Formats: sequence, structure tokens, C-alpha cells
Amino acid sequence: MSQHILSVLVENKPSVLARISSLLARRGFNIHSMAVGPTADEGMSRMTIVVDAPEMEQVKKQLHKLVNVVRITELDPQTSLEREIMLIRVSAAPGKRGELLEIGTIFKATVIDVSTASMCFQVIGEPRKINDFVELVRPYGIVELVKSGRIAMGRDTKTRKLRAIG
Amino acid sequence: MSQHILSVLVENKPSVLARISSLLARRGFNIHSMAVGPTADEGMSRMTIVVDAPEMEQVKKQLHKLVNVVRITELDPQTSLEREIMLIRVSAAPGKRGELLEIGTIFKATVIDVSTASMCFQVIGEPRKINDFVELVRPYGIVELVKSGRIAMGRDTKTRKLRAIG
Repeated sequence: MSQHILSVLVENKPSVLARISSLLARRGFNIHSMAVGPTADEGMSRMTIVVDAPEMEQVKKQLHKLVNVVRITELDPQTSLEREIMLIRVSAAPGKRGELLEIGTIFKATVIDVSTASMCFQVIGEPRKINDFVELVRPYGIVELVKSGRIAMGRDTKTRKLRAIG
Repeated sequence: MSQHILSVLVENKPSVLARISSLLARRGFNIHSMAVGPTADEGMSRMTIVVDAPEMEQVKKQLHKLVNVVRITELDPQTSLEREIMLIRVSAAPGKRGELLEIGTIFKATVIDVSTASMCFQVIGEPRKINDFVELVRPYGIVELVKSGRIAMGRDTKTRKLRAIG
């Protein structure tokens, strides 16, 4: 089964999320991550859903039929801009802080909270980079970890020559 | 109605998200944002849900009763670490790039895609900071905007004296 990324624009109603997640659950698709947030338009929300599924065509058709679903786009992981944010609290006795800060520097992670027993890092990037960070700090002891789930956006394909960044 | 932040640890099953969002929808709560992602433990996911609701005690009790829900924590917005990530594509003719880059610098935003017609910024921070960025670039024309929804984590309260960061 491969991972698919759906970007779904919905009207901001209490039941729309329930209907979409029910539809995916009925088909037995596992939701790897989901990020739902407001858009520039107050009445609309955008959901970025990453699902493990053999194919998405049928589901996209069914999603289109749901009330309050405005637009569905399947994003190609190869050509999309994908980002995720993670907060991770790691056990850190004072003698271990230096080592952890070194890892943080390599990943451009930011320390956003520190105590005598732990440090909390904010890590941003592509999902693979974030997972690498988790594995590197795992031996120190992960106290708590929260991820946003991926958000994704297509590149501006009208002007391919300028796409050297990211 | 005030905003409440729930951090919900769930077993990673296809139907758990549907059940939680149905429960919130039945009570007519509007979900402001929801971020669902994997945790350090492969069988578990963590959901960060921001809802507009008069009170949460009843809902927390009902959520606790749902199958696959492991733990529910309500986070105090005053004392939590809250972050969000946004990708925003803004119209940018070449003559406008400089102005947009200046705004980007102030917000420590990163340009992750650029074309002859637009620029895509990655912006990270507390929700209020992100909203300020949106309002500043709105006059240039927002082409596309996707937010992760908030993620949040309690501070390490055992050691208050070190909490000067963030």
C-alpha cells in the first residue's frame, strides 16, 4: 500500500470532519496523519490527509459527493512542498545537554523549553528529516512527542525554471 | 465561547478519528483546528484539537469512554507551548519580491518556492504570529494557504525556574 496525500478544501461546519473520517474508516484506510486548519477565507478549512491506501480514485469520487466538501486535490509526493512540525521533549540531565544541542544544531531545531530534567525541541521540515531527528534522540529518552501531521502544497508549475529552492 | 485545547492519545485505528469527530460534531462544537500525527510509539497517534466550546468537562468524560482513546489532557493556553506551521503562496511580481522578503525576514519566514508570479513562505510560530503574517501579505494577494493546526505541549512544571525560553 502506498501513501497518498489529499488536500481537501471544506466549508467550516461541525460535521464535515466526521463525515470525511467516517468515509475513510469505512473503507478501512489508515489515516497516517491529518492536519485541519483555517484558510485565508474564514468560512473555509483545509485538510491535509495522508492515508495508506492501494488507490484513491473511488474515494475521491465519494468525497466529492459529501456536503460541504468544496475541492479535493491529490498531491504528488514527488513534486509537492511537504512540511511538518514536531515538538519533542527529551530527557536531558545537565551533562547531556551539550550532545543534544549538537543534534539540534544539525537539524536547525530550536529549544523552546528547558528544565533540569528535560529539553523541548521544535523541529520543522520534511517528514523524513523529522523522523531522523526522533531516531537520533531516542536513546536519551523521549518524554513526549507531538507532530502536526504533514501539510502540503503543489509547486508553482507555471514557471519550472525557478524551482531550485526547497 | 472560549477556545479549548485537547491533547488526545489514541490507538492508531482507522475508526478512532471518525468516532472522536462525530462526538464533537453531535455536540455542535466547531473544530477550529485538528492535528493528528504519529508518536514515538508506532501503535499510537496523538491528536491536538482546538475547539470553540462553552465547557469541556462533559466531552472529556465522553471521549474517555470511547474505544481506542488512551489519554486526554486539556492544555491551558496560558502555560502551554503552542506552535503551528503554515505554507502560504503569495502573488509576487518580480518588483514586489523585495517587500515580501522584508516581511519574511521580520517573521523569520523561509521562502521554499519561488516563480515569476509567486513566492511560497513557510511560517512557524504561535498562532497569533502566523495570523499577523497573513494579514501583512494579504494585500499582495494570497494564492494558497495551508495550516497545520496547532500542536501543543505542557511546559515542564517541575522546574519552573528554568522556563525563561519561548
